[in-house]
Amino acid sequence: MGPAAEGKAALSTSPHESQEPGDPAVTSGARALVATLVASGVDTCLANPGTSEMHFVAALDSVPGLRPVLGLSEGVVTGAADGYGRVAGRPAAALLHLGPGLANGVANLHNARRARTPVVVVVGDHATYHKRLDAPLESDLDALAGTVSTWVRRSWRPGDVGAHAASAVAAARSAPGGVATLVLPADVSWGAGGVVAAPRPPRPPAPPSDADLDAALLALRSAEPTVILVGGEVVADPAAQDLVLRLATAAGARLVCETFPARMARGSGRARIARLAYLAEMAAAQLDGARHLVLLGARRPVAFFAYPGRPGDLVPDGCSVCELAPPGVDAIGALRALAEALAGAGVGSPRGDPVDHHRGAVRAERPSGPIDPETLGAAVGVTLPEAAVVVDESVSSSFGLGAGLAGAAPHDLLTLTGGAIGFGLPCATGAALAGDGRPVLCLQADGSALYTLPALWTQARESLDVTTVIIDNRSYAILATELDRVEAGAPGPLARSLLDLSRPDLDFVSLARGLGVPASRAETAEELTRQLAAAHAEPGPHLIDAVVAAPVGR
Amino acid sequence: MGPAAEGKAALSTSPHESQEPGDPAVTSGARALVATLVASGVDTCLANPGTSEMHFVAALDSVPGLRPVLGLSEGVVTGAADGYGRVAGRPAAALLHLGPGLANGVANLHNARRARTPVVVVVGDHATYHKRLDAPLESDLDALAGTVSTWVRRSWRPGDVGAHAASAVAAARSAPGGVATLVLPADVSWGAGGVVAAPRPPRPPAPPSDADLDAALLALRSAEPTVILVGGEVVADPAAQDLVLRLATAAGARLVCETFPARMARGSGRARIARLAYLAEMAAAQLDGARHLVLLGARRPVAFFAYPGRPGDLVPDGCSVCELAPPGVDAIGALRALAEALAGAGVGSPRGDPVDHHRGAVRAERPSGPIDPETLGAAVGVTLPEAAVVVDESVSSSFGLGAGLAGAAPHDLLTLTGGAIGFGLPCATGAALAGDGRPVLCLQADGSALYTLPALWTQARESLDVTTVIIDNRSYAILATELDRVEAGAPGPLARSLLDLSRPDLDFVSLARGLGVPASRAETAEELTRQLAAAHAEPGPHLIDAVVAAPVGR
Repeated sequence: MGPAAEGKAALSTSPHESQEPGDPAVTSGARALVATLVASGVDTCLANPGTSEMHFVAALDSVPGLRPVLGLSEGVVTGAADGYGRVAGRPAAALLHLGPGLANGVANLHNARRARTPVVVVVGDHATYHKRLDAPLESDLDALAGTVSTWVRRSWRPGDVGAHAASAVAAARSAPGGVATLVLPADVSWGAGGVVAAPRPPRPPAPPSDADLDAALLALRSAEPTVILVGGEVVADPAAQDLVLRLATAAGARLVCETFPARMARGSGRARIARLAYLAEMAAAQLDGARHLVLLGARRPVAFFAYPGRPGDLVPDGCSVCELAPPGVDAIGALRALAEALAGAGVGSPRGDPVDHHRGAVRAERPSGPIDPETLGAAVGVTLPEAAVVVDESVSSSFGLGAGLAGAAPHDLLTLTGGAIGFGLPCATGAALAGDGRPVLCLQADGSALYTLPALWTQARESLDVTTVIIDNRSYAILATELDRVEAGAPGPLARSLLDLSRPDLDFVSLARGLGVPASRAETAEELTRQLAAAHAEPGPHLIDAVVAAPVGR
Repeated sequence: MGPAAEGKAALSTSPHESQEPGDPAVTSGARALVATLVASGVDTCLANPGTSEMHFVAALDSVPGLRPVLGLSEGVVTGAADGYGRVAGRPAAALLHLGPGLANGVANLHNARRARTPVVVVVGDHATYHKRLDAPLESDLDALAGTVSTWVRRSWRPGDVGAHAASAVAAARSAPGGVATLVLPADVSWGAGGVVAAPRPPRPPAPPSDADLDAALLALRSAEPTVILVGGEVVADPAAQDLVLRLATAAGARLVCETFPARMARGSGRARIARLAYLAEMAAAQLDGARHLVLLGARRPVAFFAYPGRPGDLVPDGCSVCELAPPGVDAIGALRALAEALAGAGVGSPRGDPVDHHRGAVRAERPSGPIDPETLGAAVGVTLPEAAVVVDESVSSSFGLGAGLAGAAPHDLLTLTGGAIGFGLPCATGAALAGDGRPVLCLQADGSALYTLPALWTQARESLDVTTVIIDNRSYAILATELDRVEAGAPGPLARSLLDLSRPDLDFVSLARGLGVPASRAETAEELTRQLAAAHAEPGPHLIDAVVAAPVGR
């Protein structure tokens, strides 16, 4: 049976397929795939293709509606797909080449998995009949895909590709969102018999259970110390933030945001909700004494790493935990239900804001002097344009940025959810592609920048309005901190050499220009502020190498 | 039971452990690991560590003998470990951080797997008791490791680490060689009770079977067209090349080398053995008419990719295949046995060389005019210093390089065994670390260079004598070829945009300088030749951006 006959057989067994105008027997799997993605609302395809994806690539010109964007390595492609999905709220496609191409993209897909970003990954594979030959690029692609995906399928016939693509989009968008990976063998891509499928509805979030709502209400109505830990969609939405802030105030509960939210509405005029600290001992202080912990769109808090003799589970002893809205459950709905039940306590009423201390962050003063995390935060705070997206991979420098950012113009903050570094530059690229003209600011640690530097080239090619600040402390400063915290003793010269990014110094201005992005260097907070204002005022990408005074770890 | 007690328990059950001077109860798992690696002959550790590896990092100063070399991304680390292992013939260690760090290194480990390079990967993981918490960096690290490793083990107790490390080195060095991955949880690393283990012997290659030898002799003695396809250690060793050349001549057989040898001795005065072509139709011509195919250190030949309507298995119809020395079998021993059996035919005798047409490649003329693969090959041929290592990731440009290289000074050629791009710059880095002063030339395609560019920084930090030639055709030229070959039709503007590396042009001189490597641009063959000679004459790394005339694919 040839591919065309296979495609027709598939047509009769799949109820979800619709037909593209024209003879399905001459529509390739690749064309059916592109058409189905477009029909399902996917309009952007980040790509780093190879030979096995050439029919997909060729189909982009014959089937309109999918904008291809080239990334010069797969980490750029997948990180940009993460940023796109977080800002657009719907998936981009990420086109990758066989197992090694997918492997290069796994780290940023790991971050997307942790952020629950909708992403549709299409990985080309060898032709079905070629796999048994164990050609040089053959590898266990399916095992790789399984490590980051909520949904993996392999199409074996051109007639299945459309239905699988519609299912992939639905899987990526189904609550709580995730990475859906479709493996596309070359012959399935080029074979005739492709059938375009109609969009499939994503699975909505489940409602919270009455038992969990009752438990949460009991905690909130108790006189005992209670913490509401929020995350996910609750912190992405300013209205939900306002509601949860009123809820917490009425209940006398502490309100804390998860450490690394996928997307958080922030800035002047918005609710100020402190994030749970990265350092476990500081996080423990934020939760100290709590008798009840209500999780609303956030997961149970744990330490990022284990440290000798310290607990990894951050829930205080004797504290009850109510997982009201774990991933897949409607956290906004749960919040509304709580607010309604507590309405007598003033929650949800429009009678003014009882918690002014959680608002009214003032715009920072123009900073002066050396660049450090505080002055960097202030420089950003005074220059950030309205409606920006801020991508934060500032790593060790993040500890001081908060105050300046809190008073900045309202913005969305995207953070490093999964801890896999090399996230910032690609994520900012995807955020700008999705943002429909919104300015993007990327706060990027120097060490991590080196992982996915070619993202800058894509920003230049696509004329994206991204301003990158390289926080240039010439070290893996976070590791100098961690080396101390894990009690490994005072580092000797060999250990220090592995934390040090000098010898030779990196020249980020030269690197950016090599990738087609204008760049400048700032050595004082005044210079940084001026350069940020100028970069925001000009269209297209710009990089600022912010040289941090008194580098840590040298 | 605390870690120390666990360590002692392990001591009594493992016969392979020996004891470091001092109290084993105060030797951490990390220190036992480093000491065991050193005892087993590992002297170099490529590294991109994170928090969970800090005790390993700290141990480098307290346990002498393991030289740490920082790579600024994991692809640099693993590609350098591949290059190191190919040149040194013994493993370097590659230190990586959790699942995402390993994922970033998988592509170049895939190439090492295909090359059968001995590599010991040490991946730090969360503390054993921390894994259940599903902290942000948690992922299915074991699944990732399985895709590239011949051996994977996870140490659960400090007392096991030493024995596991000795086993890892032995596994990496056991015939035919491969990637051995040891997963090291943080608490196993910092816990007391580590025990240093004595080296374990690697498994030697198996002898060829008498039946296979008889079958091969029958083929070689027949009057029918016979091809000997060689690879692996047979082409790495000039003496073995000479012997197989005499064998083939005596038997009247064609002699062909596998397409992508891990290491091939080449250059003037050495046997000239043509490599099987990358393009399947050219490879088919090289094997055309063969009635017998004897595989000696090479695998059964297959097409790199499938193409519509063309066979993937390159063995001609009706041709018998004798897999005399598949991976793990002693190909050199098999070769000697064949030569001895055929000694009557003049093989193995010292009476001169019957096959002059396979020798005596003349050094190329100094080239002039535009830079293209032929003039590039000639420029390399006239300038290459003695005893160099040449790393070839020239991709599409490799098609014309051969003639120039064949007449160059004797050198070792390392090729892209697994097809995972981003190999060249890291591999050259590792080759230089292993080469004890041997000059290294890296022929690097532009598109692939962007995957692992920070390798240049490691070359600068370590003052390695690597000359990199970027073959700058400003396109994924190989894909323009492949797009045509897979019969995907004439590319439209969107498809072309995905193959094009201009808009904006990359400036490799600026990129190299940004990473601390001196660089120059060559736009004619004369300039290229001059710059190559100058780069070879100066110590330390240098990059030449060789602008290829009339770029393909624009």
